[in-house]
Amino acid sequence: MEQLRIIIDALGSDSGVKSMSVAINKILTDFPEVCLTIVGDQDELIKNGVNSERVDFIDIKQTISNTDNIFDLLHSDTKFSILEALKLASSTKNIGVITAGNSGAALLGSMRYLSTIDQPVPCLAVIFANAKGKCTCLVDAGASLDCSAGQLQRFAQLGSNFMKKLYNIDQPRVGLLSVGTESTKGNKITKEAYKLLAADVSINFVGNVESNKLLNDVCDVMVCDGFAGNQVIKSCGGVVTNLIKEIMVYSMTHDEVTQKVCQQIVGHITEAYKLNSIGNGVILGANQLVIKCHGDGDPDTIKEAAHILVNVAKNKTLYD
Amino acid sequence: MEQLRIIIDALGSDSGVKSMSVAINKILTDFPEVCLTIVGDQDELIKNGVNSERVDFIDIKQTISNTDNIFDLLHSDTKFSILEALKLASSTKNIGVITAGNSGAALLGSMRYLSTIDQPVPCLAVIFANAKGKCTCLVDAGASLDCSAGQLQRFAQLGSNFMKKLYNIDQPRVGLLSVGTESTKGNKITKEAYKLLAADVSINFVGNVESNKLLNDVCDVMVCDGFAGNQVIKSCGGVVTNLIKEIMVYSMTHDEVTQKVCQQIVGHITEAYKLNSIGNGVILGANQLVIKCHGDGDPDTIKEAAHILVNVAKNKTLYD
Repeated sequence: MEQLRIIIDALGSDSGVKSMSVAINKILTDFPEVCLTIVGDQDELIKNGVNSERVDFIDIKQTISNTDNIFDLLHSDTKFSILEALKLASSTKNIGVITAGNSGAALLGSMRYLSTIDQPVPCLAVIFANAKGKCTCLVDAGASLDCSAGQLQRFAQLGSNFMKKLYNIDQPRVGLLSVGTESTKGNKITKEAYKLLAADVSINFVGNVESNKLLNDVCDVMVCDGFAGNQVIKSCGGVVTNLIKEIMVYSMTHDEVTQKVCQQIVGHITEAYKLNSIGNGVILGANQLVIKCHGDGDPDTIKEAAHILVNVAKNKTLYD
Repeated sequence: MEQLRIIIDALGSDSGVKSMSVAINKILTDFPEVCLTIVGDQDELIKNGVNSERVDFIDIKQTISNTDNIFDLLHSDTKFSILEALKLASSTKNIGVITAGNSGAALLGSMRYLSTIDQPVPCLAVIFANAKGKCTCLVDAGASLDCSAGQLQRFAQLGSNFMKKLYNIDQPRVGLLSVGTESTKGNKITKEAYKLLAADVSINFVGNVESNKLLNDVCDVMVCDGFAGNQVIKSCGGVVTNLIKEIMVYSMTHDEVTQKVCQQIVGHITEAYKLNSIGNGVILGANQLVIKCHGDGDPDTIKEAAHILVNVAKNKTLYD
């Protein structure tokens, strides 16, 4: 069995080393072909039960907080776990990096250490499950907030390549996020991007899509600038959280039978939309895949990140 | 009792004259102080039961479809119901206009016939109910897709004035939609707008807000450009529709007790978030309030539009 190495930044998660250790052990159990290089506090990880022949440690205790100025730290002499993980990825054979640390550091570090092209534009892909059992990848989800039409085209290509590898889709359907389905609908950049995407033979462009169709399987890749994409993701997340909370509050003021049904419904929705694995952003545009898990990502979310890397790796490299 | 006149464009609704007639009769019943000027097909409306001393008709049978080119029609000699309703509003005493017709025609017509300022920027406000029983108004929801920072500031002022009148809020909390709460977060225009809003003493600026907080009552007015705003609204709508559908599908494959609870939950969510009255956009920036109801708005949605106009009118004029 070919070994697949994943590099994990074990610091930076809001959930702490205990939760990260659980995640690491879940990955080791679920993916026997995976071996890990873990960048983090070795003693603490071992204390929390990380102990396997398939694990190498790089002992680093310094992390980047969400309030640190990333641009300063990129030129600092201090070794930060997230940046060391990315540097290591540039020089060793691996299938990708997982971090739950600072988003800016993950993005800038990926572009700095893992990109060979000039002035790469960072792009964050987020995958949504829909009730039809399929997934749509939204690019960009918040890495590049001011985009040109050409950058949106680049995101379309990156997203399309990613979905090809991740789900073995031959010609992923690429939709352009806009305010209406007609080609004339949109803001200035979107209308320009429409023309570029329509003329791009490397992708399967299906036209404009609206954000209320994200869960309706109308495209495999939904392209937008990072500002709009971030609104789509957070809006969806906010509504789901509120509705589930509303059901639970309703449940508490009713009888046992109602409570049981409420729990079943919430469980069903969680399962149908794979809500437990939401929170992973995949940084595209670098030479390796870097998965940025949500800061408070639970062990299952981190394990899902490994799942993505393994899936892509089994279809060989990302950009062949 | 002072009479409050509302002008209704009775054509243009996808639901047809029957549904509109039901809406009109609901308004007449629920708001005894309201009298109506109805622009539409008089014979058809009477045939469908519209018959009251508080109703005047302007008999017009021509409507603007969603595929028509609005710019051409604005200069046409034909009398279109939506444009005639707006013209009438400019020359008669009334508390506002209700239409379920073409959005572009409603926006452009409002700016053309009901604005006295030079180059007015159309702004569409959409009101969201949250489970705390309060509401947040999102501006702009899709009228102006490419905005300057100054235009966002104007939307903030319009939204703030509107919420003052609609809910008697003394100093509505104005939030700026962005990708993070810190003042440094956002795209170029948002960062510029942040400075303008922070320096504007006419509004109560509470800083950046994220779209996952729309239902959490963190602000009374959420300001953004129309492209981002449209994404927020449609994302929320898409998720709500999908989750409710998911609950109903789940219900159908389970026993009667489960089905009953599922229906109760959907009813509770619909009530808590006032989902039946969602679909009304309020055009701000003109001299009268124009409410653009969703094309397939049901009678309750149209009635809710009248409710908004009556509420605002009872606090006197909108822009005093």
